[in-house]
Amino acid sequence: MTSVAQRAWHQFVKEGDTVVDATCGNGNDSKWLAERIGPNGNLVAFDIQEDAIRSTSAVLEDEVDPELLPNTRFIRGCHSTMQEHVQAASFVCFNLGFLPGGDRTIVSQPTTTVAALKAAMAILEPRGIISVLAYVGHPGGMEEYKAVQEVVMQIHPQDFTVLEQRILNRPNSPVLILLWRRPG
Amino acid sequence: MTSVAQRAWHQFVKEGDTVVDATCGNGNDSKWLAERIGPNGNLVAFDIQEDAIRSTSAVLEDEVDPELLPNTRFIRGCHSTMQEHVQAASFVCFNLGFLPGGDRTIVSQPTTTVAALKAAMAILEPRGIISVLAYVGHPGGMEEYKAVQEVVMQIHPQDFTVLEQRILNRPNSPVLILLWRRPG
Repeated sequence: MTSVAQRAWHQFVKEGDTVVDATCGNGNDSKWLAERIGPNGNLVAFDIQEDAIRSTSAVLEDEVDPELLPNTRFIRGCHSTMQEHVQAASFVCFNLGFLPGGDRTIVSQPTTTVAALKAAMAILEPRGIISVLAYVGHPGGMEEYKAVQEVVMQIHPQDFTVLEQRILNRPNSPVLILLWRRPG
Repeated sequence: MTSVAQRAWHQFVKEGDTVVDATCGNGNDSKWLAERIGPNGNLVAFDIQEDAIRSTSAVLEDEVDPELLPNTRFIRGCHSTMQEHVQAASFVCFNLGFLPGGDRTIVSQPTTTVAALKAAMAILEPRGIISVLAYVGHPGGMEEYKAVQEVVMQIHPQDFTVLEQRILNRPNSPVLILLWRRPG
């Protein structure tokens, strides 16, 4: 499903973009974004866990050609503070749930996830995209998904188009929600 | 949403393919398919209504370069008889509901829709795609969608991957379901 998400991102993220990885985790998404936006782009990577920041930093250092790396900032802290750190971005991604291979008791929480999503909407440029991958099959994942769903269903369709994608015959597979900010 | 569907089809339908428009209606999907598969392709277009067959035939004749038209067969009849008319196809699309601009009392029915969907699954080649656009906001549309959903949720994930796409903040907008037949 991550690759389904990244395939969807392909049409929205361009060379030179300013993008935010709101949950950098093991660095998988940040790596994809770094390679996509390249040296003229700006990447801001958040995670609440020091381990995740370290992993992501190592992945970018070890697996991306240094000359092709974007301007990158790491923020160890809650992604709900996004507006304090980023003024504008054309793409923000959330990969909800726990850090793969990490402490499974540290998971993103509905309240801060919703606050972070609203912060992302506030900094998103017109025609920008917010991507949320919700692991409905993980403990607490369904509640978190429901909290996100409740917020996005209220968004006026003139402001954002909110697309949801899921695998119907794998009910535990993650659900992808894309918010597209409409121009003007 | 039709254009969202067609954008999704783009990665699955290729020049020379054999494809089925199970509900040709006003000809919009058949036109897109004809232009995509070209003169080496085969298009089979079903509709229960003579008006729809006439409209689709006229659209192909008037709007597609005759030299680029695929080998085309029209079948006026129920799409649940698909297996009697087509042995194998790599793509089958359903646009459920009524004929736009036509008699709104003539709509596709859950029973025949489900039968036709099963027929489409039987003729679909490995790596082929079935696309179902369900108008949940139309009268009877939600029941029809639920009938389709019930069937596809039972499909073994080793046989088909069933992807659903919907606009969360436009609850009446059509839902797109894509069934991808897994290889082998």
